[in-house]
Amino acid sequence: MSFGEIFLWELMGTAALTLLGCGVVANNVLKRTIGNTSGFLMVTIGWGFAVFVGASIANPTGGHLNPAVTLGLVSAGKTEWADVPAYLLGEMVGAFLGAVLVWAAYKLQFDTHDDPANTLGIFSTGPTVRNYGWNLVTEFIGTFVLVFWILLSPVFSQSEDGLPTFGNSALGYAGVAFVVIVIGTSLGGPTGYAINPARDLGPRIAYAILPIKGKGSPDWAYSWVPVVGPIAGGAVAGLVFQLLPATS
Amino acid sequence: MSFGEIFLWELMGTAALTLLGCGVVANNVLKRTIGNTSGFLMVTIGWGFAVFVGASIANPTGGHLNPAVTLGLVSAGKTEWADVPAYLLGEMVGAFLGAVLVWAAYKLQFDTHDDPANTLGIFSTGPTVRNYGWNLVTEFIGTFVLVFWILLSPVFSQSEDGLPTFGNSALGYAGVAFVVIVIGTSLGGPTGYAINPARDLGPRIAYAILPIKGKGSPDWAYSWVPVVGPIAGGAVAGLVFQLLPATS
Amino acid sequence: MSFGEIFLWELMGTAALTLLGCGVVANNVLKRTIGNTSGFLMVTIGWGFAVFVGASIANPTGGHLNPAVTLGLVSAGKTEWADVPAYLLGEMVGAFLGAVLVWAAYKLQFDTHDDPANTLGIFSTGPTVRNYGWNLVTEFIGTFVLVFWILLSPVFSQSEDGLPTFGNSALGYAGVAFVVIVIGTSLGGPTGYAINPARDLGPRIAYAILPIKGKGSPDWAYSWVPVVGPIAGGAVAGLVFQLLPATS
Amino acid sequence: MSFGEIFLWELMGTAALTLLGCGVVANNVLKRTIGNTSGFLMVTIGWGFAVFVGASIANPTGGHLNPAVTLGLVSAGKTEWADVPAYLLGEMVGAFLGAVLVWAAYKLQFDTHDDPANTLGIFSTGPTVRNYGWNLVTEFIGTFVLVFWILLSPVFSQSEDGLPTFGNSALGYAGVAFVVIVIGTSLGGPTGYAINPARDLGPRIAYAILPIKGKGSPDWAYSWVPVVGPIAGGAVAGLVFQLLPATS
Repeated sequence: MSFGEIFLWELMGTAALTLLGCGVVANNVLKRTIGNTSGFLMVTIGWGFAVFVGASIANPTGGHLNPAVTLGLVSAGKTEWADVPAYLLGEMVGAFLGAVLVWAAYKLQFDTHDDPANTLGIFSTGPTVRNYGWNLVTEFIGTFVLVFWILLSPVFSQSEDGLPTFGNSALGYAGVAFVVIVIGTSLGGPTGYAINPARDLGPRIAYAILPIKGKGSPDWAYSWVPVVGPIAGGAVAGLVFQLLPATS
Repeated sequence: MSFGEIFLWELMGTAALTLLGCGVVANNVLKRTIGNTSGFLMVTIGWGFAVFVGASIANPTGGHLNPAVTLGLVSAGKTEWADVPAYLLGEMVGAFLGAVLVWAAYKLQFDTHDDPANTLGIFSTGPTVRNYGWNLVTEFIGTFVLVFWILLSPVFSQSEDGLPTFGNSALGYAGVAFVVIVIGTSLGGPTGYAINPARDLGPRIAYAILPIKGKGSPDWAYSWVPVVGPIAGGAVAGLVFQLLPATS
Repeated sequence: MSFGEIFLWELMGTAALTLLGCGVVANNVLKRTIGNTSGFLMVTIGWGFAVFVGASIANPTGGHLNPAVTLGLVSAGKTEWADVPAYLLGEMVGAFLGAVLVWAAYKLQFDTHDDPANTLGIFSTGPTVRNYGWNLVTEFIGTFVLVFWILLSPVFSQSEDGLPTFGNSALGYAGVAFVVIVIGTSLGGPTGYAINPARDLGPRIAYAILPIKGKGSPDWAYSWVPVVGPIAGGAVAGLVFQLLPATS
Repeated sequence: MSFGEIFLWELMGTAALTLLGCGVVANNVLKRTIGNTSGFLMVTIGWGFAVFVGASIANPTGGHLNPAVTLGLVSAGKTEWADVPAYLLGEMVGAFLGAVLVWAAYKLQFDTHDDPANTLGIFSTGPTVRNYGWNLVTEFIGTFVLVFWILLSPVFSQSEDGLPTFGNSALGYAGVAFVVIVIGTSLGGPTGYAINPARDLGPRIAYAILPIKGKGSPDWAYSWVPVVGPIAGGAVAGLVFQLLPATS
């Protein structure tokens, strides 16, 4: 597949991911929404099915949506190095665009929010207790689970071309949604489970650029943690996968 | 398939949709129900599985249930213009009848509710912050996601006759349910995610006609927004789909 | 299949149904449980997946678990009249035994509950506003949706022997779970959605018999409503199904 | 399959199980998490999808993750006695390691928690009302349901080699997730549904060993209940299964 096609599919899928993922946080946080204060379970379900939608849309390229997944698949020998730039660029631009669309969809709610300086959390993750070392550990573990599951789930056993196959079924990607839901409910408590550099950095850049009324700081000091932790977790998952015994 | 058959299946499916969809809001809002104040997550789950039930019932006609879906499929070349009137009529009449059934199922709760002038929200959507332009944007985005997913999900890749195929499985339509759940959790905050002109207008007409004790205004001033926004979002999704590169 | 086999499978499946279904209400209601006051959404999810478990167990007999389903399938010509007694007996006895198991599992919580006179709701349904006519309407509508979905979902289109087929998949019955979840969220508000005479009457008899500490009345005056409403709803769904045009 | 391979797959799967399962409780209980006080429904969903992830990872060995499942399958004639030691050892070591990872992921939250003496519940189960006899009954019933469902669900009907088959689908193990969710919502109220000796004992040992700040007692007095109850429930489920009439 060409650079442009990989770029396009991943861009569209990742835009859907951050539109729906950041959207559920906006709905939960902003005061004048119907879903205000619905709670963290709704947020995890929203992010989980956001992956379902985004991955379905990006099905032609395997629905990576996530540099940590792309690099994990590369380190596991499932994706070509030559395709990586197209994946990463599509993921980053898509994540940015999805965040812009969230702002458009919730424009009136941003304008009428009563605590606009604390809206970064709608776009990007942050730790409840700041300690870069342990925050990295949490992001590493969460992303390892995600990429390890993708590699070990029965999905790849049917693949012939390096792309995951989900049985040509509208429901195939629901498995990824379930994994993302449980990573959220179970490992999202300390740092908000970025587990995806594009999902965190793209919206953070959008937050820095967009004319959001009364907005606060994009917290660049923390921004490298949800990039480095997930990339390390995904890459190590791919390497560990290579060491496993073969199964028939 | 004949006009009458399309009309009948879409009517039954859309009636199930608004019966179960408006029903979950009634359960959440009306005071003397078991589910009172269960919250927005329950509402989004209820609407999502309402689509699952309705689309399963209307499976012979592809389970549109929604003029924005019908027009999106037309603009993508997946449904014939000649069949559109039967689809739209079935969707509108069904949406109206489902709302009448909600009133019947919750008759005693409507009669004993303590704030009957504010029950329009059980039937139709409304904005938390009224601004027709931005409200249209929100409805446009939500419906675009719905129709774009339907067109890009692996569902159509197996289709030979222009109707979506869900693998003859009782679970096939669960994918649509997941999409509708996440559109609700993530984009439903500002306007209540009509994303379907029939789902909004049919129950609004029912609200205007039914002898609901102490009822308020059907808010005709807003009623065009959840018609125009979804139709535009669905049609544009179909056109964008036509521009995408082919996938094998 | 013999009388005894039908009886056995339906008994086991329906016992699992009421064990898990009444169990989630016990968890929600009784004071000294971990899930106390978790809310109605948890109750609907619990009942939904209770059907998933029970129907999977009773897969050899099609997983009816419900006289309204059995009679609906008979009226639609999908189940033989000759098998009905075995189905109904298994369903009733199973529903009773499941309720006994709930009491055993929650024995310590029943003994330590602070409002033991109001524990009937753990076992059987009751209306929030008592009016037998409208209560019947609500139960009729809910059961009609259940049986109509079963008959119209793609499940039966693959059947060759009168039993529903769920593709020999562990997930097949998840579709029924989703339908029961949404009937709960959307139509359960007024009467607690019995939608199943065995599920209501079996546990009600158990409540009357079991030595539950400080228990209240089994409310026999209401007990016929969740029997008659569901049977009528299921039978009418079967008859309407027979009137529908054939689909290829 | 060799001892080492069975050990490895079950270890990895069970580590994922307790990492994600104990993780959701940590998120719910510890004060400085994003999911604090999200409630029991989130906990049950987290544990359910934790099984989905763990069983998918341990797919080559059938995804037991649980000595009660292993012994249940042995007593039903579905697993060889010779393989049992490898299964049990992998499950126990994995459950321990997963709990260690939970502590790492939530290290900062353990350090800043305001009630550290009451954190055993994050790792292991305990009764709300202590009575070993009835607590055993509750654990027995819950585990019976789990193992009976596994044996009776359509999963095994397609198996040719004694391992459960989930259709080579990424979604196959979702059925087990649904069963575990409903066992949690419905039978988890009295004792926290260990239903798995490894899941309870492994993390309990981790709690006893790990340098958790201000930690309380591992409650060894109760620790045999979630071992004996589940083993008995699983074994009896296997024996009852053997008595059932054959289905074609």
